[in-house]
Amino acid sequence: MIKLLVVHGPNLNLLGQRQKDIYGDKSLIFINEKIKEEALKKDVLLDIFQSNSEGKMIDFIQEKKVESSGMIINPGGYSHTSVALYDALLAYEKPVIEVHLSNPLKRETFREPLLTAKACCGVILGFGWRSYIVGLHEVIELMRKARKNG
Amino acid sequence: MIKLLVVHGPNLNLLGQRQKDIYGDKSLIFINEKIKEEALKKDVLLDIFQSNSEGKMIDFIQEKKVESSGMIINPGGYSHTSVALYDALLAYEKPVIEVHLSNPLKRETFREPLLTAKACCGVILGFGWRSYIVGLHEVIELMRKARKNG
Amino acid sequence: MIKLLVVHGPNLNLLGQRQKDIYGDKSLIFINEKIKEEALKKDVLLDIFQSNSEGKMIDFIQEKKVESSGMIINPGGYSHTSVALYDALLAYEKPVIEVHLSNPLKRETFREPLLTAKACCGVILGFGWRSYIVGLHEVIELMRKARKNG
Amino acid sequence: MIKLLVVHGPNLNLLGQRQKDIYGDKSLIFINEKIKEEALKKDVLLDIFQSNSEGKMIDFIQEKKVESSGMIINPGGYSHTSVALYDALLAYEKPVIEVHLSNPLKRETFREPLLTAKACCGVILGFGWRSYIVGLHEVIELMRKARKNG
Amino acid sequence: MIKLLVVHGPNLNLLGQRQKDIYGDKSLIFINEKIKEEALKKDVLLDIFQSNSEGKMIDFIQEKKVESSGMIINPGGYSHTSVALYDALLAYEKPVIEVHLSNPLKRETFREPLLTAKACCGVILGFGWRSYIVGLHEVIELMRKARKNG
Amino acid sequence: MIKLLVVHGPNLNLLGQRQKDIYGDKSLIFINEKIKEEALKKDVLLDIFQSNSEGKMIDFIQEKKVESSGMIINPGGYSHTSVALYDALLAYEKPVIEVHLSNPLKRETFREPLLTAKACCGVILGFGWRSYIVGLHEVIELMRKARKNG
Amino acid sequence: MIKLLVVHGPNLNLLGQRQKDIYGDKSLIFINEKIKEEALKKDVLLDIFQSNSEGKMIDFIQEKKVESSGMIINPGGYSHTSVALYDALLAYEKPVIEVHLSNPLKRETFREPLLTAKACCGVILGFGWRSYIVGLHEVIELMRKARKNG
Amino acid sequence: MIKLLVVHGPNLNLLGQRQKDIYGDKSLIFINEKIKEEALKKDVLLDIFQSNSEGKMIDFIQEKKVESSGMIINPGGYSHTSVALYDALLAYEKPVIEVHLSNPLKRETFREPLLTAKACCGVILGFGWRSYIVGLHEVIELMRKARKNG
Amino acid sequence: MIKLLVVHGPNLNLLGQRQKDIYGDKSLIFINEKIKEEALKKDVLLDIFQSNSEGKMIDFIQEKKVESSGMIINPGGYSHTSVALYDALLAYEKPVIEVHLSNPLKRETFREPLLTAKACCGVILGFGWRSYIVGLHEVIELMRKARKNG
Amino acid sequence: MIKLLVVHGPNLNLLGQRQKDIYGDKSLIFINEKIKEEALKKDVLLDIFQSNSEGKMIDFIQEKKVESSGMIINPGGYSHTSVALYDALLAYEKPVIEVHLSNPLKRETFREPLLTAKACCGVILGFGWRSYIVGLHEVIELMRKARKNG
Amino acid sequence: MIKLLVVHGPNLNLLGQRQKDIYGDKSLIFINEKIKEEALKKDVLLDIFQSNSEGKMIDFIQEKKVESSGMIINPGGYSHTSVALYDALLAYEKPVIEVHLSNPLKRETFREPLLTAKACCGVILGFGWRSYIVGLHEVIELMRKARKNG
Amino acid sequence: MIKLLVVHGPNLNLLGQRQKDIYGDKSLIFINEKIKEEALKKDVLLDIFQSNSEGKMIDFIQEKKVESSGMIINPGGYSHTSVALYDALLAYEKPVIEVHLSNPLKRETFREPLLTAKACCGVILGFGWRSYIVGLHEVIELMRKARKNG
Repeated sequence: MIKLLVVHGPNLNLLGQRQKDIYGDKSLIFINEKIKEEALKKDVLLDIFQSNSEGKMIDFIQEKKVESSGMIINPGGYSHTSVALYDALLAYEKPVIEVHLSNPLKRETFREPLLTAKACCGVILGFGWRSYIVGLHEVIELMRKARKNG
Repeated sequence: MIKLLVVHGPNLNLLGQRQKDIYGDKSLIFINEKIKEEALKKDVLLDIFQSNSEGKMIDFIQEKKVESSGMIINPGGYSHTSVALYDALLAYEKPVIEVHLSNPLKRETFREPLLTAKACCGVILGFGWRSYIVGLHEVIELMRKARKNG
Repeated sequence: MIKLLVVHGPNLNLLGQRQKDIYGDKSLIFINEKIKEEALKKDVLLDIFQSNSEGKMIDFIQEKKVESSGMIINPGGYSHTSVALYDALLAYEKPVIEVHLSNPLKRETFREPLLTAKACCGVILGFGWRSYIVGLHEVIELMRKARKNG
Repeated sequence: MIKLLVVHGPNLNLLGQRQKDIYGDKSLIFINEKIKEEALKKDVLLDIFQSNSEGKMIDFIQEKKVESSGMIINPGGYSHTSVALYDALLAYEKPVIEVHLSNPLKRETFREPLLTAKACCGVILGFGWRSYIVGLHEVIELMRKARKNG
Repeated sequence: MIKLLVVHGPNLNLLGQRQKDIYGDKSLIFINEKIKEEALKKDVLLDIFQSNSEGKMIDFIQEKKVESSGMIINPGGYSHTSVALYDALLAYEKPVIEVHLSNPLKRETFREPLLTAKACCGVILGFGWRSYIVGLHEVIELMRKARKNG
Repeated sequence: MIKLLVVHGPNLNLLGQRQKDIYGDKSLIFINEKIKEEALKKDVLLDIFQSNSEGKMIDFIQEKKVESSGMIINPGGYSHTSVALYDALLAYEKPVIEVHLSNPLKRETFREPLLTAKACCGVILGFGWRSYIVGLHEVIELMRKARKNG
Repeated sequence: MIKLLVVHGPNLNLLGQRQKDIYGDKSLIFINEKIKEEALKKDVLLDIFQSNSEGKMIDFIQEKKVESSGMIINPGGYSHTSVALYDALLAYEKPVIEVHLSNPLKRETFREPLLTAKACCGVILGFGWRSYIVGLHEVIELMRKARKNG
Repeated sequence: MIKLLVVHGPNLNLLGQRQKDIYGDKSLIFINEKIKEEALKKDVLLDIFQSNSEGKMIDFIQEKKVESSGMIINPGGYSHTSVALYDALLAYEKPVIEVHLSNPLKRETFREPLLTAKACCGVILGFGWRSYIVGLHEVIELMRKARKNG
Repeated sequence: MIKLLVVHGPNLNLLGQRQKDIYGDKSLIFINEKIKEEALKKDVLLDIFQSNSEGKMIDFIQEKKVESSGMIINPGGYSHTSVALYDALLAYEKPVIEVHLSNPLKRETFREPLLTAKACCGVILGFGWRSYIVGLHEVIELMRKARKNG
Repeated sequence: MIKLLVVHGPNLNLLGQRQKDIYGDKSLIFINEKIKEEALKKDVLLDIFQSNSEGKMIDFIQEKKVESSGMIINPGGYSHTSVALYDALLAYEKPVIEVHLSNPLKRETFREPLLTAKACCGVILGFGWRSYIVGLHEVIELMRKARKNG
Repeated sequence: MIKLLVVHGPNLNLLGQRQKDIYGDKSLIFINEKIKEEALKKDVLLDIFQSNSEGKMIDFIQEKKVESSGMIINPGGYSHTSVALYDALLAYEKPVIEVHLSNPLKRETFREPLLTAKACCGVILGFGWRSYIVGLHEVIELMRKARKNG
Repeated sequence: MIKLLVVHGPNLNLLGQRQKDIYGDKSLIFINEKIKEEALKKDVLLDIFQSNSEGKMIDFIQEKKVESSGMIINPGGYSHTSVALYDALLAYEKPVIEVHLSNPLKRETFREPLLTAKACCGVILGFGWRSYIVGLHEVIELMRKARKNG
């Protein structure tokens, strides 16, 4: 069975408690349940991780590189400035999809640069918790294609 | 039955014939077939349109506003500069999702501003023809939610 | 009798149906009626045109150049980026006034550059449908002055 | 009878004496006469003021706030940089229209930012002394509408 | 016999009638005659097209792709901003040369970005109608070289 | 007894009458009373001044330089652009604290540059009328420290 | 009794040992003592935290959200670039005041953007260790006001 | 006898008392004496004026336009941003020379734009009080040349 | 017989030895032979010069001004920054054409500003050694036209 | 014996496994061995540390400040944006040398700002693992010099 | 007797022959004569030099450093970009005055940065050949002052 | 024996005489001696060159290309702007290392762009004369590696 990483960045553990008009009213637990259901249907193992720390996110990505085949990441606020995370995603060398709950292009101008997304195969913005489900489906597609070619 | 617009912007009629390393090897006919299959499964009517002209894209969006409930649009090169298309999407006042075959954030810097995406609920970048399928699923979700609330 | 062009750009055919807080609740038909009434009083022939297409707007301006003596134009979203329309206005070589229903300087920052307005004698922003009436009066003044000097 | 403020900014007292190719050959006295004639027709009281000083312009606007119902202002060179005047116009809380004799968008690039115009209902550029007459008509419209709604 | 496309962008149909100090006093008919004479000498078929519409220019380029071997294009005002036209030129995949009658680098600063020229083999600026003749000679050179290598 | 200057910039005389959601509902008279109470407790003389004029603010600062030992200033809209006021604060050569009722960093982008604040010891933003009280306490601290060292 | 968070960002644990001309000669222990004394007087509980890690600062803010009623934060170098910390402060949804020992506007230009301060009620710059004391007083005011309204 | 204006801008009345390392140790009285001595030698009448107010500087320039033949101006901090003063200098239509005591190009970056200097014949930077003497000689040259040609 | 200058800038003496994919495989000797052949046919004298020094290029242009009637110049890397060469081309006051072997708009972004080209009649980019031949033909046209008019 | 810190930033633990064309094929273990060998020869103690976390890097630098005499740091992706690390390096107050394996100036434009390098004595870019050896030699030179002067 | 350097940059040897409306109709020989006359009166030796080469200008400045006491330089087009010349002026360590015949602030925007002027005591712009005479007087003042203090 | 070029750019011949706090107190002769000693140890021939002229530096690099195997260059002030030197370094096609005595990132902002360094294998900043020694060692490494692979 192939394994998929799900990486939630800073402040995502607060989902459902803050700014519901922007991020929706679902908690991270709810979202993780949804992802797990979907992964079960697709016969994919999950390794889910949340951290507020850029460094711990990079640690996790590095440690799980060998055992996993792809990643969905919501880098939260680190999306817009983190060269270190961009480098970690490049170094992962397997399919990565960046997801966001909201569409950051509709918000403050400091959210317009999408730096880490430059290191991703695909990007999904604005579907609330469904962004993750879409990302899961698509990264599995990419992982299967990679496996076939590899 | 609800109707969904699918709007392909400039140069997308050439898919499968040009720059396959960036846009993939599938033709627009193939992609439209895939979208139709999926729409059939979801019991959704489609109205598919391609034009190289910003003005005709706006015409189509306006004419089909009343009879349709949502839209997937790949504005191609107009994504990066067209205020007129942005205005047309805002005026459509129903769920719109912007899709791109490639991830423009990985390409030339003049593709970084995503202007029309500021008028969309969600954005999907980089999954080849599957970007449309994902968009179709998500816009149907949004249309159903809108109908429930409306 | 002198003839005046009235050129409505993209999305203006939707007036009264969309974003009424910004553009007002009057339809384009209403506005055109108002313009016609005023033109009648002033003994001026009108040639009114709306298009969502930058190219068709340029076609119209070129075709009507000889038979007309002045123009009111609301270039809509093309105001902010269109060098081609700017060139067409310069080439028209008769009085042109740019009008906008809303005051774009109060809105999104991408509406701040007013490129086509650099090719106009005068600019009128923010008076709703009355922007056209004001424009009509002023372009007639300019046309009469031009005729006297010509 | 309602009262209207007419505020002329720096260097406008020199009209008719300097750079006639840009500003026209009419003096400020002539323009004020024209405004008065028009106000008389419209049954509107005027309070006309000119100052070269940003501070005195703000003083005048504040002092006349209660007794007046609207304003036409030509902020001259302060249009492009004055946050203080912008704040005074916002605080006036009644209809304000900015007018310019010339079209500043056709001139030096440092005239392109129109900062105070962001605090105005409408903007009129480039009709020489007639910019004021147009502004007078339009501000009266707005004042009457405000009175009806108020 | 090989076929060459000649694409004239917006406002070029007005040549000889407007801004003669910038664009020269020759009409587009004259220029087309000159191009035809030269093509005859070189045994090259021509397909000449003018449009004010970005979309129609792209349509033409796509439709004529198979039957032609090269292109001279004067994108007019679309040179400076059109990503869609840039994409169409890349997708054409045969030699393209951009020509301008005037030298845009000597004019308004908004003419300095030459976006479509980034998709061209060569660029010729400032020789009036002769820019086309030079372009014709050079694109034939490139087409012959391409044919030899192809 | 030491004397402290309190300088209120443009539009601050309108406090309590305009934009109460931003500036609060207290009048300048109220704020001055609060400052006086506090000064009385601290055994400090006050010299309070308000002007809408950049020049008069500079005049006041210069005239009171010798007899005073420190200053609280709210430069209002001049904060963002005035080099002349910046120079006057530098030339004052005694402790100066800049205060704002609102937090300008949360407002329009043209309020982000805080030019005059570069010439101040300390800056206090966003506490409504209490910004002045805080400023008063702190400038007294600085004045006492300066006196001890001087 | 209400509880107040005091969050010290990177390098603040070194206070009193480095660059004393900029940051003063007081250690963080001294500052914390001063804050504690003041809190005692005001009957407020404190939870003081220092970290060099952006992630740990966010962790702390999240964990203490429920039990606390307000925060003073000195984000140190993270003030200028951290979107993640900005998001954490917004999500905290209780009064936050940003304090700095020095006035960063007087230092290197890369310290001019004050990003996290956009998420704060108030900002206090440049009073050395007293910035914290001022912040403590003001956040208590805000917390009391919030409690009254809540 | 011809008359020459000498206009000193904001804060120049403080010369000799502040920042002597930048502006020198001479008072404005001393400088004015030096200018008068020199004018006496050159048989030129002087009209010397200092103001901290942009508006009063413009008033003075306008009032003295007819009776004077040239001007030396040190606009102080208004040099870098004042469009109104720039306009007043253009409207003066006689020789103007801008002088600065220090060389602003060696100081803070916000002093690099020299806006009013764009409206002057010549510019003299960095010679302390002698900048005025040099300016006096040169403006007399220009006035004499203007008179000869006029 | 008229004389034409051919000026090759820095590093062009290395042609055929370096970066052949960009500059082609022809040496400067080859190119000069081609230019000479063509000049012979056109009855034009040549004065060919290469230098790596901006100053020597300017010296050459100045010295040959009187005896020559036009110039082809490839300023190499000086194209993008040299104000001095721009000035020398303006001062030459006879037809100048700038040529480049490659199309610099397709290369590094620091090659996008084409400063010296602002001082030229025409510009030819991207035809390898043929850029010079085209330039030769066109400058002869311009020289003949200049002679007729002169 | 003097002690030297060696700080490896984010993703450097992956050396030899990722992007070998950019970073070379040597592992971090190999590099550390090389550094140790060299330190042994030079009679210098080493304290080597790697972390993906900006905060832990700052912790380490602070903790080891007293016991060490100098530092080599490769801040990886934090080089380009981290004000916090810049502050930590300044606060270290002993010789610091920044090293990079690759030459970031040859890579993506977001790697061009070298912020932390502004806080370093010297910078070494592009020598693969040898960058560290060079850095080691040079920091020892600096430490010896510092000791002599200290 | 003290010696003064006079350095004329690129294209200044053409004075009187080119663009007389900008630079005046006097030749460099005329200007040098004027400078010599003035130097004679002031008992100062001159060493006058003109070069089109940035490098030779630097050579000259270096070689003459010991034997001379001050310099007037007109760096021509090198004023706006040359860091090397800036460094040479700093290294000269004696009074330097930059002079320009025209006022570059009134010309093309690429002439606005005055880089070398940042390394000069004083700057004189726009007095034609008299800029040199003024510069000569002032540099002698500075040299005498330097000698007194030295 | 392999030969190494050492190229010193503008003003480096003045070392030890100017700005010793920035560049150190060693003369260029001293540095060259040090380089020679080191080269002797490494059995490498040297060809040392200094010029203040961009053009002569390029000449030298071209002339010595065949006979040499690598280069150390300190381009001085040309580092920041010279496209011509960048091109010459690329065309040299052998290992090049850029060295600077000071760390330009700590100095004026116009020294931040390091253009020529984009064409170098490695860069060494800030070690005074030792920058050259380090560069010598490293370029020899690179030359030996190149020879092995070549």
